[in-house]
Amino acid sequence: MPETKVKKTKDFNEWYNEIVELADLCDKRYPIKGMNVWRPYGWKLMTHVDQLIRDEMSLTNHQEVNFPLLIPESSFKKEEEHIEGFGSEVYWISHAGLNKLEERWLLRPTSETAMYPIFSIWIRSHADLPLKTFQIVNTFRYETKQTRAFIRVREIHFFEAHTCHVDFNDAEKQIQEDKEIAKRLFDKLSLPYILSKRPEWDKFAGAFYTISIDVLMPSFRTLQLGSIHQYKDNFSKPYNISYEGEDGKHNYCHQTTYGMSERILGALVGIHGDNKGLVMPPEVAPIQVVLIPIIFKGEEKNVLDACDDLSLKLSNECIKSFVDKRDITPGNKFYDWELKGVPLRVEIGPRDIKNNQIVIVRRDNSEKQSLAKDTAVNKIKEELNMISKSLYDTAKKLLNENIKRVNTVDEAKNIKGIVELPWCGIKDCALEIENIIDGNTLGEPIDDNECNNSCPVCNNPAKTWMRYAKSY
Amino acid sequence: MPETKVKKTKDFNEWYNEIVELADLCDKRYPIKGMNVWRPYGWKLMTHVDQLIRDEMSLTNHQEVNFPLLIPESSFKKEEEHIEGFGSEVYWISHAGLNKLEERWLLRPTSETAMYPIFSIWIRSHADLPLKTFQIVNTFRYETKQTRAFIRVREIHFFEAHTCHVDFNDAEKQIQEDKEIAKRLFDKLSLPYILSKRPEWDKFAGAFYTISIDVLMPSFRTLQLGSIHQYKDNFSKPYNISYEGEDGKHNYCHQTTYGMSERILGALVGIHGDNKGLVMPPEVAPIQVVLIPIIFKGEEKNVLDACDDLSLKLSNECIKSFVDKRDITPGNKFYDWELKGVPLRVEIGPRDIKNNQIVIVRRDNSEKQSLAKDTAVNKIKEELNMISKSLYDTAKKLLNENIKRVNTVDEAKNIKGIVELPWCGIKDCALEIENIIDGNTLGEPIDDNECNNSCPVCNNPAKTWMRYAKSY
Repeated sequence: MPETKVKKTKDFNEWYNEIVELADLCDKRYPIKGMNVWRPYGWKLMTHVDQLIRDEMSLTNHQEVNFPLLIPESSFKKEEEHIEGFGSEVYWISHAGLNKLEERWLLRPTSETAMYPIFSIWIRSHADLPLKTFQIVNTFRYETKQTRAFIRVREIHFFEAHTCHVDFNDAEKQIQEDKEIAKRLFDKLSLPYILSKRPEWDKFAGAFYTISIDVLMPSFRTLQLGSIHQYKDNFSKPYNISYEGEDGKHNYCHQTTYGMSERILGALVGIHGDNKGLVMPPEVAPIQVVLIPIIFKGEEKNVLDACDDLSLKLSNECIKSFVDKRDITPGNKFYDWELKGVPLRVEIGPRDIKNNQIVIVRRDNSEKQSLAKDTAVNKIKEELNMISKSLYDTAKKLLNENIKRVNTVDEAKNIKGIVELPWCGIKDCALEIENIIDGNTLGEPIDDNECNNSCPVCNNPAKTWMRYAKSY
Repeated sequence: MPETKVKKTKDFNEWYNEIVELADLCDKRYPIKGMNVWRPYGWKLMTHVDQLIRDEMSLTNHQEVNFPLLIPESSFKKEEEHIEGFGSEVYWISHAGLNKLEERWLLRPTSETAMYPIFSIWIRSHADLPLKTFQIVNTFRYETKQTRAFIRVREIHFFEAHTCHVDFNDAEKQIQEDKEIAKRLFDKLSLPYILSKRPEWDKFAGAFYTISIDVLMPSFRTLQLGSIHQYKDNFSKPYNISYEGEDGKHNYCHQTTYGMSERILGALVGIHGDNKGLVMPPEVAPIQVVLIPIIFKGEEKNVLDACDDLSLKLSNECIKSFVDKRDITPGNKFYDWELKGVPLRVEIGPRDIKNNQIVIVRRDNSEKQSLAKDTAVNKIKEELNMISKSLYDTAKKLLNENIKRVNTVDEAKNIKGIVELPWCGIKDCALEIENIIDGNTLGEPIDDNECNNSCPVCNNPAKTWMRYAKSY
């Protein structure tokens, strides 16, 4: 089978660029840098990920809404930290046709400032709470760093959940639910991740605290796939989102948000892919099983019927399959579907029909085996589960082998992935470590963060472990 | 049951505004005029319509793509008529953060000028044709007229198909297919429509010709739901979309587009709704059958089990149902689901269980009947079909009774809906008629447009019939 020009283990970033193009995911030749065209297969994968997210939202009683893209400058400027954080990253509209607008509008970088003036109208009493909403929309950020498909772009395909609660504790419960959503979602995508509480200086602009969801890419850089924010009443006060309690008193809501983006697709491509192309976890693959008729003259009908027959049986079991009847060689079909990452290939030829069997080939490890026709459907189901598990295990191994807890900066310097060092809680100490090891703070581990050692910079007792990594 | 304050037959436009708000479709209190917030139920209805469109696209081998929202001014300005037509309606971005952009960008009003520079890269040879793509995105137009939910807005939820073909004839075949798509789609939505070929001066900016899809609203105004455009090579020349034919020669593609918008939802609300709220055609209703347990103390389990049991049977037959177990009176539940337009209501109480029956109530005509439990599922299926048909027939009657073909302007003046008059082909004559009857030209009927009478303005022989109506 043909392989990528650049090998994944040789130059991950170049390999990634090549694969994104070869597999027809997006086109980077659009005349605005960092705004890419979603090609049909890329868009299909993305909308399949979206559907998994929508399923989670439905399961947890979030309702889908859709807010306007444009935000008046006056709405945007109500929360001080927020405007400070995003002010330099937004696109401004000042003219419509030939007319100058009375007030400038901006393209949403995220939708707090679009939604919250309306939430303040929607929420009147405790009976309106919790309010749990989400939307999947395009957002915009003026990136000045180098752009990279799905990973750093200027028009972002974005999921954002926004919730309002009676108090801090109820908002904290939402954050617990958000973590469970992450667990279920990323398990389906075979993506192991870590949760870190960002340091104060790196939290979301306006948040009380921020938990980031990071994965480790094969380049040993971390990629942030999402974040969960506790806002407390930081936004509800300036936007006046309050409710009348059962006791008749007015209180401000406590809020949370949950954001994820097309970076999930970037992680699927980068973590699971290989030199033959994409490898899609079965839960997200638009085609889970591709059936290739191995055809010789005169045997065609037999073989095609057997393929159609199996395809029907698979679809009765909710397995998404496709019979590739194109007039090209089986070899070319193998190549196409390997590139597209279809998890399982079935080959059926005249000899297989005679022997009442089929041949299956796993995309993840190229293992080939013959299956008795009668038990094939169940076996295929099992194999799909094993592919999910195997993709997860491989990624988990990469993560486990490259996240290390050490006590000195010298040890830290030699670690390629994520390193955890004792931290005293002082910003300057963390920044010095960033400098020395040429990485960024990811934040404190959410669990198991107790540290009795001393800060390797100031030697004072550490308050917690702090994670560092090179990140995208 | 409570009814709207304003009656539909009394003041349609006010009734429409009331119903949009009562049924929780959108919120018009967003601080930018004409940019509304999609509330959960409105967004659900819209995405159900989108799904019907996606089904049609999949059936006809169109592939879904997603192009950037922002278009560089230089790309936009390549086709002269197009920029003339849209130049005064677009929003301009000149700044990102604090920086002035080197070139201005605009928000897409439609995506020709975003897509075609890329199509010119994608298409190389005849083997790449036809290229059939579509996207469902937000588009933007600076409306100066009065805005109205779903009907005239500034951020538009928009469907656009774009196709490229080897020649004019192949593009014409696409337009035939587009008409078939319209037939299937609008039949499902119980929306009768007319197709008119717009006059030269009212076609899409840059098109060779434009066919508009119009419905008649109960206000006797027409509402354009979509349009199908033949571009010929008008765009492929300036954007250099060409291919190498089998003979080795380079030719320009011929192109078509197909556009539809959230106006479809406006038509569903306005045409089918009544003083109790929405009436959704079963094909687009998120809930097709709502089951209301009529509960008395001590009988609860029995009744709830019967509801769950029927709901399961309905879902096995792909009928979307919901058991409303909320702790409010049955009457309040009736009211809620009537407002939301659920086509069929099932009531099950202790007496029904004893009699092995259920009660159904149709939303469209309030007819109530008892059904034997054993045959209920099939009967419900039939009733849903009858509701679709009945909604279509009622709308068709409105259209048929209010589209008239006459020969003189005097006769035309007294017609409330759509009038067809002989037309000589001269613009000034049509404009004079527009003035006299206070309506707009819709265009020539697509079929049956032969006219042997004379133009009522200049008395010269007519070339065709021309339609006029007041329109949104």
